[in-house]
Amino acid sequence: MTTERVATPISFSEADMTAIRFGVDGLVPAIVQDATDGTVLMIGYMDDTALRRTLSSGRSWFWSRSRQEYWCKGETSGDRQWVRAVRYDCDGDALLVTVDQDGVGACHTGARSCFYRAFGDGDGDSDGGGGQVSGAPAAG
Amino acid sequence: MTTERVATPISFSEADMTAIRFGVDGLVPAIVQDATDGTVLMIGYMDDTALRRTLSSGRSWFWSRSRQEYWCKGETSGDRQWVRAVRYDCDGDALLVTVDQDGVGACHTGARSCFYRAFGDGDGDSDGGGGQVSGAPAAG
Repeated sequence: MTTERVATPISFSEADMTAIRFGVDGLVPAIVQDATDGTVLMIGYMDDTALRRTLSSGRSWFWSRSRQEYWCKGETSGDRQWVRAVRYDCDGDALLVTVDQDGVGACHTGARSCFYRAFGDGDGDSDGGGGQVSGAPAAG
Repeated sequence: MTTERVATPISFSEADMTAIRFGVDGLVPAIVQDATDGTVLMIGYMDDTALRRTLSSGRSWFWSRSRQEYWCKGETSGDRQWVRAVRYDCDGDALLVTVDQDGVGACHTGARSCFYRAFGDGDGDSDGGGGQVSGAPAAG
């Protein structure tokens, strides 16, 4: 299916960590993007522990708000994510994680990207990239 | 600076709208991605009104959590975003907005992407795309 990939830990300093402003729930959103073609694959949430695990292990770790537990993406499904970079935004309240994605994709539905549906696009769109939707005047 | 761009409203149905699960604060995160090269430019938050304005106007509207007001990106700075597609994820609790970005970029710092800093990359990285960071074993 896929070539065997290797986890590459990312070095980080406590100064880096203090730049991250976790929300009142202790979380920040983490956008996951394909390192090769730029497709936005999914969004998850990390707390301090999940972020440190992600950086230290080179695998993507999240906090599940619904299950209230940590999860390592792909550990059960096989759709693993091998982290290549973790960026943070100007406010320090969001992360951008670029990964090599194993398997068919990141979405539990089997789609490559979780963002497979678009407004104004009745039959959905499996491309999470930059495809343009030609617009008609909006209803309402 | 940039070629004159045209707003293109996106048609949407109330069925589309009901697919969106706004959080307890009435918001969903909206990832903004460059339609041309896939760079993740920024993340903002939309409530029902901001999303409808975005779709109806073809310009990106957000709810500012810090200022507690709606804002249309670039209306004061000139760094306007012309919306080409709005996708939503499998859970319906996140949006992916692809845009043509006017001006230098999306970040108030002058960077093209708000995600210009990376862990393990002391001098920052102005590329919000899929660049890889070679990792050393993590501290701690």
